[in-house]
Amino acid sequence: MLISELSRRSGVPIATIKYYLREGLLPPGEATAATRAEYDDLHLGRLRLIRALVEVGNLPLAAIRRILGAVDNEDLDVHGLLGTAQYALGPKVDPPEDEEWQETSDQVDAFLADLGWRVTSFAPARKMLTQALVTLRRLGMPAGADQLRPYAGAAETLAREEIGRIDTSAPRSALVEGVVVGTVLYEPVLIALCRLAQEHQSALRFAPPRS
Amino acid sequence: MLISELSRRSGVPIATIKYYLREGLLPPGEATAATRAEYDDLHLGRLRLIRALVEVGNLPLAAIRRILGAVDNEDLDVHGLLGTAQYALGPKVDPPEDEEWQETSDQVDAFLADLGWRVTSFAPARKMLTQALVTLRRLGMPAGADQLRPYAGAAETLAREEIGRIDTSAPRSALVEGVVVGTVLYEPVLIALCRLAQEHQSALRFAPPRS
Repeated sequence: MLISELSRRSGVPIATIKYYLREGLLPPGEATAATRAEYDDLHLGRLRLIRALVEVGNLPLAAIRRILGAVDNEDLDVHGLLGTAQYALGPKVDPPEDEEWQETSDQVDAFLADLGWRVTSFAPARKMLTQALVTLRRLGMPAGADQLRPYAGAAETLAREEIGRIDTSAPRSALVEGVVVGTVLYEPVLIALCRLAQEHQSALRFAPPRS
Repeated sequence: MLISELSRRSGVPIATIKYYLREGLLPPGEATAATRAEYDDLHLGRLRLIRALVEVGNLPLAAIRRILGAVDNEDLDVHGLLGTAQYALGPKVDPPEDEEWQETSDQVDAFLADLGWRVTSFAPARKMLTQALVTLRRLGMPAGADQLRPYAGAAETLAREEIGRIDTSAPRSALVEGVVVGTVLYEPVLIALCRLAQEHQSALRFAPPRS
């Protein structure tokens, strides 16, 4: 298909497609004339993925580049592949490296060790967790192991399901693509369902139906 | 305390405190002279809350204003109070109102009705969920009731715990403040733990320890 049809079918403006081509996010089409190129379903799929990462993931260009690189790089083993993709999602946290941070970071390490979870020392999610806990404590909100345990339990149940569902007979690129898109898009799904469930539980507790 | 001490103890620059005062986010201190005012622990607590909403919640000024208004408004009942605060958190989704959106929105409604959850028709989280599902489907990712059910189950378990934990004997303002801060700050906690759990489950499945 020509770039005009690619634009129509993907819903991405031609100028944006040309930008992705220039930035190397989208591989070039097959040139059929000096100013004409043919695109195929692979371009369409990749374009939809980029669009999801931009519009839903709100990811900066550098993270999108790293994720697409991991999608294309067949040298990484499955665990390394998933890790590279997930770590590219960030978030980029610059720890203040003060005493409060260090103390909380140590508690996060102890909590994860206690759960027996195998995660690297440089996983971005460690810092993400530490940052939230530092702020909770600064606000005087309880944020110890007792508070974290229900969240860790829910997270472990979901992760077992998510990782168990991965079909390793699928092409490795499709597999990573699916996991990245799934991670970026299922986080808002989970958050949305948590908020809806809170409203429901609040209704049950504080606004029982009149009988 | 003077504004200089308030700044030191909260970690918020004096210029930012003055900006919050001008915007009415922070109530004025008690004037002790033409250019001098005394602040107290209430100011310190409110400042820490605003800071958390800005830095951790990444919330725009309008949302912060609505949340602080709900914190201060004693006329709302508990369920309405929690709802106002949660809805102020957004997200603000502008639905395209096309056929694809409408179809997915209907499926969200049917899914929630099936769960028996009591949520208003205008809950922002409905649109948040619809938006994520529209994108998932556009990318050809499975996103039906079968995929959603584990997330809904985890969300319900957590929400029961969160809402059950609310101490209704606490002052209503502290209660709302706690719930808002808890919502804004425990979402990144949950997401961080989900990512760490995924890494652990991926390690278990794809990188078993050598024996």
